[in-house]
Amino acid sequence: MAHFIKSELTALGAEIELRELGKQEGTDVDLPPIVLGRYGNDPKKRNILVYGHYDVQPALVEDGWDTEPFQLVEKDGKLIGRGSTDDKGPVMGWINSIQAHQRAGIELPVNLVMCFEGMEEYGSDGLDDLIRAEKDKFFKGVDATCICDNYWLGTSHPVLTYGIRGCSYYSVTVSGPSADLHSGIFGGMVSEPLIDLTHILSKLVSPQGNILIPGIMDMVVPLTPEEEKLYDDIKYSMDDLYAATGSKTNLFDTEKESLMARWRYPTLSLHGVEGAFSAPGAKTVIPAKVSGKFSIRTVPNITPRELDECVSKYVNKVWKDLGSKNKMEIKLMHDGMWWLSSPNHWNFEAAKKATKAVWKVDPDFTREGGSIPVTLTFEEELKKNVLLLPMGRGDDGAHSINEKLDLINYINGVKTLSAYLHYAAVQPMAAA
Amino acid sequence: MAHFIKSELTALGAEIELRELGKQEGTDVDLPPIVLGRYGNDPKKRNILVYGHYDVQPALVEDGWDTEPFQLVEKDGKLIGRGSTDDKGPVMGWINSIQAHQRAGIELPVNLVMCFEGMEEYGSDGLDDLIRAEKDKFFKGVDATCICDNYWLGTSHPVLTYGIRGCSYYSVTVSGPSADLHSGIFGGMVSEPLIDLTHILSKLVSPQGNILIPGIMDMVVPLTPEEEKLYDDIKYSMDDLYAATGSKTNLFDTEKESLMARWRYPTLSLHGVEGAFSAPGAKTVIPAKVSGKFSIRTVPNITPRELDECVSKYVNKVWKDLGSKNKMEIKLMHDGMWWLSSPNHWNFEAAKKATKAVWKVDPDFTREGGSIPVTLTFEEELKKNVLLLPMGRGDDGAHSINEKLDLINYINGVKTLSAYLHYAAVQPMAAA
Repeated sequence: MAHFIKSELTALGAEIELRELGKQEGTDVDLPPIVLGRYGNDPKKRNILVYGHYDVQPALVEDGWDTEPFQLVEKDGKLIGRGSTDDKGPVMGWINSIQAHQRAGIELPVNLVMCFEGMEEYGSDGLDDLIRAEKDKFFKGVDATCICDNYWLGTSHPVLTYGIRGCSYYSVTVSGPSADLHSGIFGGMVSEPLIDLTHILSKLVSPQGNILIPGIMDMVVPLTPEEEKLYDDIKYSMDDLYAATGSKTNLFDTEKESLMARWRYPTLSLHGVEGAFSAPGAKTVIPAKVSGKFSIRTVPNITPRELDECVSKYVNKVWKDLGSKNKMEIKLMHDGMWWLSSPNHWNFEAAKKATKAVWKVDPDFTREGGSIPVTLTFEEELKKNVLLLPMGRGDDGAHSINEKLDLINYINGVKTLSAYLHYAAVQPMAAA
Repeated sequence: MAHFIKSELTALGAEIELRELGKQEGTDVDLPPIVLGRYGNDPKKRNILVYGHYDVQPALVEDGWDTEPFQLVEKDGKLIGRGSTDDKGPVMGWINSIQAHQRAGIELPVNLVMCFEGMEEYGSDGLDDLIRAEKDKFFKGVDATCICDNYWLGTSHPVLTYGIRGCSYYSVTVSGPSADLHSGIFGGMVSEPLIDLTHILSKLVSPQGNILIPGIMDMVVPLTPEEEKLYDDIKYSMDDLYAATGSKTNLFDTEKESLMARWRYPTLSLHGVEGAFSAPGAKTVIPAKVSGKFSIRTVPNITPRELDECVSKYVNKVWKDLGSKNKMEIKLMHDGMWWLSSPNHWNFEAAKKATKAVWKVDPDFTREGGSIPVTLTFEEELKKNVLLLPMGRGDDGAHSINEKLDLINYINGVKTLSAYLHYAAVQPMAAA
């Protein structure tokens, strides 16, 4: 993917460098390189940094896809395939924007600084270090950053996003026998790792979504009446949630409570178990070593370090109380900090005008439940405003089967990205 | 496998029929045929029925095998491969026994009636019906049955087995959204099926192995001092358990308690979760539909029907208490009854003499924690004694990775099976 992006952009005249990052921690595997690019070098123009990622979530036809996940299919006005909306589609959007300018014979009004990584879905390994190392070199002179890697809240109204949750991803591993055992022969004689693990996982979160780990909710900033009012005008209805999830399994009955749960409160999700029997059918096995995977989405003012202390202390206490002879290890797999900005900045104003020009409506200003940790790093290191300008819709199925990007969202998305560059080039810097 | 067995036995002069069983319930998949065979038809000889199965547990190199599981490897005096001990090896043992008699020019002293099935690892679908239908036809005149499909208790002392536990295998499925969801976007807004499932599974059994479903322990026959005494002379030590499991994660500190937990008490094992994230790495998904798999090993006097009522009632109550908007379904995937016989029968006496002749020691009389439901069906339908005469050792790793059968166990096993036929041909029928 990195080489593909390089060849596309090089063909358009951009200067591209593939930055190697060394090995993935604890492995002999090379990290995928970061694509650093620059298109235009006019000192009279503003420098706009755009970010995207070319890696995607795992996908198998057996997961339930209607089509081969790694082959892009166009059907019923939708581009279907893994990465179509998260985030290969938006990365292609920037490339197509340059191409469209060239074909129309219109000069790009800004210098485009590009950073496309390949580890976003696994905590952006290596990217933070690169940004810190390059802030006064490759990233020197950046005036604002635009990230196209999230989604509209619903399916019909464009949004600009000024906040995201952080994410700390954990594995809790329980091991006992040296190999899987026959449950008929050894069932009842030995401590079963999966039984222990199930007890641990059940003590992390309630079916109502309440996090059972002490200390986490105490770190959440209290809700003020002013903040609560921001939720009143958001164009979102419970029907959007029902449509996006294909069910009525909502934890809250109102739009406001649902959006707050997604934007301003932490949540703990269970993702699965590695090492246990996971195929269809019946296998009478006692798995020898099992890892439960869970993650916590974080919000102001939870810090990853304090969170980690809460999780580690609690899981170790739960483990001790179980009184098992097996071994347990709780491990932070990756983490990323939440980010909360203010939309009163010329960068957002430019995006607002671009959205209005293309979609003929004013965008909603939203926060996001998902996590793009690099957002915060860009803002903190470059000391410039970061804007999230999404291309896809809330029902795109990112991370799920049959991931799609509506064709109109791609076409109007490329137009919006392009228009944004034109407004960003001229927007008064002091404007609100 | 059925065709392979047929061709091997036909080449040796046996009459073989492959009995088709129709479709697997609820599917369009043909059940594997049962191999029915007869070698010898002399009305002056006894008819000995032997049973085995040619199906095996699932196995993938990725599970952690040192070798390709479906390619037999001989190494360090061991035959390594899926099915080597459970139960392809023993089935080959009967075939080799006939072959050895032919090569030595010795007539088989009994008529050998053979029944080899292909669904043992999934509840022996279709076999019970076939036995009932054929009890006065194909199985007419059978004098005793010998099943070679279990293991020595330890690694050095041969055993004969007169009791086995039953097994009821369940799936409990929780479903909510119509497809997997991104945990960043939807975490906190919707009820997560895997959280609900984890809560259910954690309420089935304690880390100490106590079944938490009311009513099951009430059905277990009380331990009498006479029965307790039977456990005193069994050649088994905690070191055997440590060696077989490669760990010291025993639930009980004594041999007697451990063996009772395996032989005369029910146990509940958790096997895994279908539908959740099960690969290495980190995936931020909310799985839409997950099935937990668990099984209960049953003992006198638990009946599958009463057990099923206890499980269904309890899981439904636990589900109601969770108060989730998701959907839950508890389903019995397959079941099989326990079996308890008496070793005071000429059939066991013949096997005892055979064991002594080959291994130079008296066998221990044991019960078994695993389940071979057809044992009971053979006994009830044919009204003749059933003997379990195992070939492999307790550390063979049946159902696990690197399943093996020691070469000496195979060679002496074939000798023991053969000697058994000779003793069974002449053993006085009234003998104890």
